[in-house]
Amino acid sequence: MKAKGKAHLPAPLFADTPLTERVGFLIRRLHQIHVALFVQEAAELDITTIQFTALSVVHQRGEIDQSELAVHVGMDRTNVSDVVRRLLERGYMTVRVNPEHGRRRLIGLTAEGIAFLKKADRCAQRAQERTIAALAGPDRKVFAALLRHLVQEQNSLGRSPLRLK
Amino acid sequence: MKAKGKAHLPAPLFADTPLTERVGFLIRRLHQIHVALFVQEAAELDITTIQFTALSVVHQRGEIDQSELAVHVGMDRTNVSDVVRRLLERGYMTVRVNPEHGRRRLIGLTAEGIAFLKKADRCAQRAQERTIAALAGPDRKVFAALLRHLVQEQNSLGRSPLRLK
Repeated sequence: MKAKGKAHLPAPLFADTPLTERVGFLIRRLHQIHVALFVQEAAELDITTIQFTALSVVHQRGEIDQSELAVHVGMDRTNVSDVVRRLLERGYMTVRVNPEHGRRRLIGLTAEGIAFLKKADRCAQRAQERTIAALAGPDRKVFAALLRHLVQEQNSLGRSPLRLK
Repeated sequence: MKAKGKAHLPAPLFADTPLTERVGFLIRRLHQIHVALFVQEAAELDITTIQFTALSVVHQRGEIDQSELAVHVGMDRTNVSDVVRRLLERGYMTVRVNPEHGRRRLIGLTAEGIAFLKKADRCAQRAQERTIAALAGPDRKVFAALLRHLVQEQNSLGRSPLRLK
């Protein structure tokens, strides 16, 4: 027997939750804000967050297989190809056939690429700092730790799983 | 006079910070994971996170000016036009000229749109729950509160500022 009077009350819809109480929406929004801050900080350099990430990874690891690069930055092959093509056109990256796998490409940095990365470095750092500037110092650490935990635990769920140490 | 021996030590580069210690990178990654979870949960429905957000806002507020909708979801005009066009084509939204402003469009939902939103509702809720499932209960609340604080405090910095209450 159904509970009296309650049988026809519709369940509240998640869709009716205010956007500011939805974690997914807030994550999307904070990402937008971070990208906007990066664009603002690096306005004179014409560089995107993804390009900075790709340049960083090659700088950290040295010449790297393009498919490895994709794994490190968490992009699919098509997207990483686009990013690499742009940076090749601008003279910041080098490409050669991987001598161990004839069909693969090894990606490196030119001296101009390293100089460009260094020029963008402060902008990227400031964008990062400004993204979390509204939190008090201890909260910044808590936020970063929770965010890192989520990404590391759920890494395999994304479309292009990262290789995390 | 420069300090002895230290003058030529290069400052460490932000670019050499591991990606998993960069908040900006982690936010991008968690957003990717959330989108992947949403796509997985709603695989049979062919709906994106943005479409769900747009449908929700019209459901919450009733018929709404398209430029108001853009402000609520934090999108620019071009992006919101694309989202609305797709949902109109699928018969989920209605459009009419705003009688108070001849050049503006009022966007509403059809009965099919409401039924579709209700079908997608559980998927969206599960995607949200799974996005933060790796945190213990109290940490979920802390994470959501810090995230909300950042978005609300820095809202004006994004490219398409939201109208937040």
